[in-house]
Amino acid sequence: MEITLSPIGRLETPFNDIADMPIQTSVLADTCGKAVLDEKFAPGLKDLDGFSHIILLFLLHKISGYQLEVVPFMDTLPHGIFATRSPKRPNRIGMSIVRMESVVGNIVQFKGVDMLNGSPLLDIKPYYSYFDQQTQVRNGWLEGKTLRPENLRSDKRFES
Amino acid sequence: MEITLSPIGRLETPFNDIADMPIQTSVLADTCGKAVLDEKFAPGLKDLDGFSHIILLFLLHKISGYQLEVVPFMDTLPHGIFATRSPKRPNRIGMSIVRMESVVGNIVQFKGVDMLNGSPLLDIKPYYSYFDQQTQVRNGWLEGKTLRPENLRSDKRFES
Repeated sequence: MEITLSPIGRLETPFNDIADMPIQTSVLADTCGKAVLDEKFAPGLKDLDGFSHIILLFLLHKISGYQLEVVPFMDTLPHGIFATRSPKRPNRIGMSIVRMESVVGNIVQFKGVDMLNGSPLLDIKPYYSYFDQQTQVRNGWLEGKTLRPENLRSDKRFES
Repeated sequence: MEITLSPIGRLETPFNDIADMPIQTSVLADTCGKAVLDEKFAPGLKDLDGFSHIILLFLLHKISGYQLEVVPFMDTLPHGIFATRSPKRPNRIGMSIVRMESVVGNIVQFKGVDMLNGSPLLDIKPYYSYFDQQTQVRNGWLEGKTLRPENLRSDKRFES
């Protein structure tokens, strides 16, 4: 079974290379990005501006192939790809929760950039605390990691 | 530009019809579901069992076509599709955060089911509180809604 999707637009960010990119949308990161939708989808953004956070789904377009075990940036040991947020996944869909700044026409400005410039945008969903802010969370191998992800930058390990 | 994806497996749930399905993975819902991966992907599940919550990305396979404005279950007014979690989106990708129960071989058992039986599974990501548990959240039009989503069931409005 093959599934065919079409991007609804693309992400504009300051990062053109995988190397040296932030590995997450740190709450400290004030770097701005834009989701530029095809103009025909602009009416779908109505009322998005009331939300403080949005979920971006996008294609990790510079990744090719997958690895079922990877050593992620946050550890020195290998973990199953589905137990990590690493990009070398069978379906290379990235998901980032970012802080929304504004919606003007077909353009959504946001803060917290951990995606490559030109990434094809697949979907925007509102972050809703009742659904998405889970409590009593156990973080598996990430629990108690003292690495601060906002200080980490991507290296070349996941370049295709 | 067309993007081609292949499912990594499928979701098994008690819900075969859109009508009467829960509209979200309520924290009260103890209904069990299974993510059944193709066996070749089983090694990618290593260490997932340490996480209490996982993010499922799947195809909303019974939805066809999209609407740029919808009246979602949580309101009586229309909102832009990207300001809702409604299924009639340009790329019909569903995202649910569910409680993980167990990982055995290629099968992940979880609780909190709001997806149709047979939904093609696209990705599993670990829920990581540092990335996903956002604070100081404003919920836009959903703020202060007194409807309790765990009491709502789907109707036929999004059937194709």
